Amino acid sequence: MDDKSMLMIPGPTPVPERALLALAKHPIGHRSGEFSKMFAEVTDNLKWLHQTQNDVLILTASGTGAMEAGIINFLSRGDRVLVGCNGKFGDRWAEVAEAYGLSVEKITAEWGKPLDPEAFRDKLQADKDKQIKAVIVTHSETSTGVLNDLETINRHVKAHGEALIMVDAVTSLGACSVPIDEWELDVVGSGSQKGYMIPPGLAFVSVSAKAWEAYKTADLPRYYLDLEPYRKSAGKQTTPFTPPVNSFFALQATLKMMREEGLQNIFDRHERQKNATRAGIRGLNLPLLGADDCASPAITAVAPADVEAEAVRSQVKKRFDIALAGGQEHLKGKIFRIGHLGFVSDRDILCVLGAIEASLSAIGYSNFTPGAGVAAAAKVLNQ
Amino acid sequence: MDDKSMLMIPGPTPVPERALLALAKHPIGHRSGEFSKMFAEVTDNLKWLHQTQNDVLILTASGTGAMEAGIINFLSRGDRVLVGCNGKFGDRWAEVAEAYGLSVEKITAEWGKPLDPEAFRDKLQADKDKQIKAVIVTHSETSTGVLNDLETINRHVKAHGEALIMVDAVTSLGACSVPIDEWELDVVGSGSQKGYMIPPGLAFVSVSAKAWEAYKTADLPRYYLDLEPYRKSAGKQTTPFTPPVNSFFALQATLKMMREEGLQNIFDRHERQKNATRAGIRGLNLPLLGADDCASPAITAVAPADVEAEAVRSQVKKRFDIALAGGQEHLKGKIFRIGHLGFVSDRDILCVLGAIEASLSAIGYSNFTPGAGVAAAAKVLNQ
Repeated sequence: MDDKSMLMIPGPTPVPERALLALAKHPIGHRSGEFSKMFAEVTDNLKWLHQTQNDVLILTASGTGAMEAGIINFLSRGDRVLVGCNGKFGDRWAEVAEAYGLSVEKITAEWGKPLDPEAFRDKLQADKDKQIKAVIVTHSETSTGVLNDLETINRHVKAHGEALIMVDAVTSLGACSVPIDEWELDVVGSGSQKGYMIPPGLAFVSVSAKAWEAYKTADLPRYYLDLEPYRKSAGKQTTPFTPPVNSFFALQATLKMMREEGLQNIFDRHERQKNATRAGIRGLNLPLLGADDCASPAITAVAPADVEAEAVRSQVKKRFDIALAGGQEHLKGKIFRIGHLGFVSDRDILCVLGAIEASLSAIGYSNFTPGAGVAAAAKVLNQ
Repeated sequence: MDDKSMLMIPGPTPVPERALLALAKHPIGHRSGEFSKMFAEVTDNLKWLHQTQNDVLILTASGTGAMEAGIINFLSRGDRVLVGCNGKFGDRWAEVAEAYGLSVEKITAEWGKPLDPEAFRDKLQADKDKQIKAVIVTHSETSTGVLNDLETINRHVKAHGEALIMVDAVTSLGACSVPIDEWELDVVGSGSQKGYMIPPGLAFVSVSAKAWEAYKTADLPRYYLDLEPYRKSAGKQTTPFTPPVNSFFALQATLKMMREEGLQNIFDRHERQKNATRAGIRGLNLPLLGADDCASPAITAVAPADVEAEAVRSQVKKRFDIALAGGQEHLKGKIFRIGHLGFVSDRDILCVLGAIEASLSAIGYSNFTPGAGVAAAAKVLNQ
């Protein structure tokens, strides 16, 4: 049956009807008063969502573009940076830093395990002459469903005093609290097809006063990703280059929805759905990749032992038209990932667990009590 | 009256209903077979539109992002480049090249005048030891409505033999012929909100085998705009970073429309509407900024002498809800620009000329025979 598919991947995430209809509006000129009015409203609401008074700049790019901008605008060739690497995206930010000739030191953890804040503390404390200019951390590691302990790592960065903290919040912003001002996060990057509930096409980067201070002497080459023109244009309620105005229509709609729901309710919903998903998977006797105390609110990775991960995923797709994500890099074929990020209702969680259970049975895995997955999830949802 | 506005600016351009409806489809996963199928079709049709067998890569960016990618992937720090500068966009590519430490030599012409191909020939012929690595030319200079003589300039580049030719075809591709293979154009950048008839959000860059050869030794830093991963992913019918899947839906629809209309018909339509627009403006006794023999098929710049350009533009907007573009940089307030690019019908040309005439009368300019603008345009359209 066509047009009945369901996205349970970590992005693109489901898009509410009012955002889809907004996308279909005829575009307007981006140098018009009408656009500027929308730009101002969207920016105000983005600052609310980011819990910050810092600039929140809007780029036409994927999340990777926003993160690259966040890195290259505030550093100079040869600068020493610490990069937390426990998944595909941590590794990517190390690659970006290396591509620009930064001196990269990786702090690694096994994929599926969280970064150890102590490892950051050791490096930062040992850096007496303040050579470390930035610490780059992926908050929610999308490839493994692990939420890194950003709060503690950031505390060590603050104790160091000099280094900027740069955060990939692509799958944490809008799913759990990322209190930028309270934690004094310098650079935070994210993308529209995640917690923002609209299709891919926009990316966001928030920038602190301390980062702007570093901008003054930063010497890495850039033009399209140079953030100063975005700041300057934002002061005039516009963008330096032609923005995807239809994506702005959609974002205007979803940010209004988010304000109506309220930040704490959004975070509570993600927490509840995460817990229900994990309980449901446990009910099916399937192993989870990450531990409960570092579980991402956006995505749950399942590492089946007695059944092929890809067989489950393809059965769920074929039989129920639900898109789950597979594993990446060396986890390819080893795990499948359930996205519960953005416009996801409790109903969706029961639905995906029911479909996984039926698919497991269909491919001959029956090491669970029929109905146990949905029952365990329902119990959590009803608490 | 709301929702009745009309875009006659050089981008965003009008979007056909079927593309708007495609935008409102629920997104699909970008790592799905369904997306790959669409990607393959879109890429095939892009190559048809670009008249090339070269790679045509698809970026999530504005046209500036595509042009920056086109420049920085094939050059090295200190490389000598010639940049044609006779408007805002030519100047911008010089800025990009300078931002990356290239040795930039500008070949300038007054805004509103075309670049002189002889100036390129002189520089290229004098370069006996082949130090010039690239020549960067804006084909249709959006800021002035001037079409530069790319064919002749490119012939001089070919006679040089070493330099790459890099073309900003942002407002020429899909408006007039840009025969990439026939002319052996190495790098050609463009953006979705122009001749492609969809909203902003995608950008395109075609790359020749000669440019890929230069890629091997090019040393400018890049990551998000590194084109090799786009080429590699395109070989697998996908993109390296999350693409705006809804923009792909829309582009799939408009490329189909373009194939139905046919390349020559599209070019003829733009030529006819350009001529009709220019005849209409002459009928109103308003001076045109550029000469006929270098008039862009996408945009007509009008430089009124006895009436304020901005007064005309704001009256047309206020009274008839038609968006015209103003002047940029030192032409601000001196000109207004009529976009006739992409999804524009002959009817639209009569409409905008009628609205301009009525607005001129309303603000007290009456140096024309009533009806003369529309009549002159109608004559051209009926030929």
